[in-house]
Amino acid sequence: MLNEFLKEVSEQVDAAMGRWIPLEQVAFINQLFESMRYSVFSGGKRLRPALVLMVGEALGLKRQQLLPAACAIEMIHTYSLIHDDLPAMDDDDLRRGQPTNHKVFGEAIAILAGDALLTLAFQVLAESPLPDRAVIAMIRELAIAAGPLGMVGGQVADMLETGNMVEEERIKFIHQHKTGALIKAAIRMPVYAAQVDNETMSRLTSYGESIGLAFQIMDDVLDVVGDTDTIGKVVGMDALQEKATYPALYGVEVSKQMVNQLTAAAVRAVNDAKNLNQSKTLLIDLAYYLRDRDH
Amino acid sequence: MLNEFLKEVSEQVDAAMGRWIPLEQVAFINQLFESMRYSVFSGGKRLRPALVLMVGEALGLKRQQLLPAACAIEMIHTYSLIHDDLPAMDDDDLRRGQPTNHKVFGEAIAILAGDALLTLAFQVLAESPLPDRAVIAMIRELAIAAGPLGMVGGQVADMLETGNMVEEERIKFIHQHKTGALIKAAIRMPVYAAQVDNETMSRLTSYGESIGLAFQIMDDVLDVVGDTDTIGKVVGMDALQEKATYPALYGVEVSKQMVNQLTAAAVRAVNDAKNLNQSKTLLIDLAYYLRDRDH
Repeated sequence: MLNEFLKEVSEQVDAAMGRWIPLEQVAFINQLFESMRYSVFSGGKRLRPALVLMVGEALGLKRQQLLPAACAIEMIHTYSLIHDDLPAMDDDDLRRGQPTNHKVFGEAIAILAGDALLTLAFQVLAESPLPDRAVIAMIRELAIAAGPLGMVGGQVADMLETGNMVEEERIKFIHQHKTGALIKAAIRMPVYAAQVDNETMSRLTSYGESIGLAFQIMDDVLDVVGDTDTIGKVVGMDALQEKATYPALYGVEVSKQMVNQLTAAAVRAVNDAKNLNQSKTLLIDLAYYLRDRDH
Repeated sequence: MLNEFLKEVSEQVDAAMGRWIPLEQVAFINQLFESMRYSVFSGGKRLRPALVLMVGEALGLKRQQLLPAACAIEMIHTYSLIHDDLPAMDDDDLRRGQPTNHKVFGEAIAILAGDALLTLAFQVLAESPLPDRAVIAMIRELAIAAGPLGMVGGQVADMLETGNMVEEERIKFIHQHKTGALIKAAIRMPVYAAQVDNETMSRLTSYGESIGLAFQIMDDVLDVVGDTDTIGKVVGMDALQEKATYPALYGVEVSKQMVNQLTAAAVRAVNDAKNLNQSKTLLIDLAYYLRDRDH
């Protein structure tokens, strides 16, 4: 049922994003749109849009109402990957086995395609068919999550950190912000959209925080114990680059235990949340799915 | 009276932006905030915030209500300058006589500071003390103006253009989008905020389009006939880089006539707009001020 949902959601999100980023609008800037589409349609798992739509489903919203929010968060995720891969940042030539955006379109277009996706995300979100109050709350939530005290701050901390000794406080900040902030926003946006009680918000926020951190620790663990072919990127790079990771700080076994505990906490938070319908099993299944993945 | 207004507005906008971009929030990402502040407080003219607040004043809004919109548009303007100056883009070492952001903080932080300012702009805008409907309309307006079919699209067209022959259609697109789109949004956001009739929106939009294009043509003219010391950047660079400009296409005299005509059209649009109070003289004075400037 989870796999079916993920597949269906992927198709709907892809179709909607194709409409938001059409080709052939102004001939001489087509390259910009090609570059945006190249990274948007490069085989992402659509985890963040799926979270938005899952929570929406469990709160009784129509999928159509949250499709803009689902696309917006994926656009922001995609822009962050394009900019992270730039020579001045992580300097990656490959992502998901394909040449990175700047390798195909050049650095200038890659920077601008990232800027364009980030900006477009807020236009898309502003056009959500939801109550005005909810739309503003979602925009504010996503901006905070993606901004200087959210995802961008996490990237800065990670970048400045590389090569130094890991420290507990800093590594937690990096994980909570670089990936955690956006995952949490994916959970919280649909709660704003549904305009439900604070208790539901707080339970689901806790779910979002738990799977967000578990997801990132698992990523780090897979970089140590995973298989390059299965994951689709070269493993062992974190240690080589002296990246701040949980395995580096606590070892693989303790890190795996942490993932287990966080997954259990996430499942508990969903079960404790009132006002969720039976679709909440998707959220529970997803928590286990993220824990048990090998890539 | 115009100079007094511009000075007062500058101070208010600077104070508000200082609050939005505080230092010492999280010690190990302080560099990000320093970098954002470096470019935000580098002596910009605050033209776009001034336009937002002028139109608001002429429509009877309180300045406090539009301060977030004024800050948001200046943050977006600032981010675009940081990214434009990057080595992969225009590769500029100096802006307003000071080292560019990446020269001081490095490319990675400069890219991220730009990303952070762009994202923060939408958070700030979402916190405007205005009716929900107006806030959403302003967010959508600014996102479209700054996005792929707005400012970013203009930058792409300009970049791909350099070194080619100028063509009328393309150069108009560049000017309307690279600078024009944001200036038009500065005018239109406060009209949404005031929730007035369509006729006022259409007159003021026409004002915005006229001064936006006049502003850019005048910039190009000053690059040909201006004085390096007065302008604060080396003149003659456009011709050297074979940039698409009006003087290159029509000559300096015809370009100056165009600026005159556009200024007259802008003044006419303001005079024709109903529902403006006596503060509309600020808008008229500004149109002449932009025409007559020597830097």
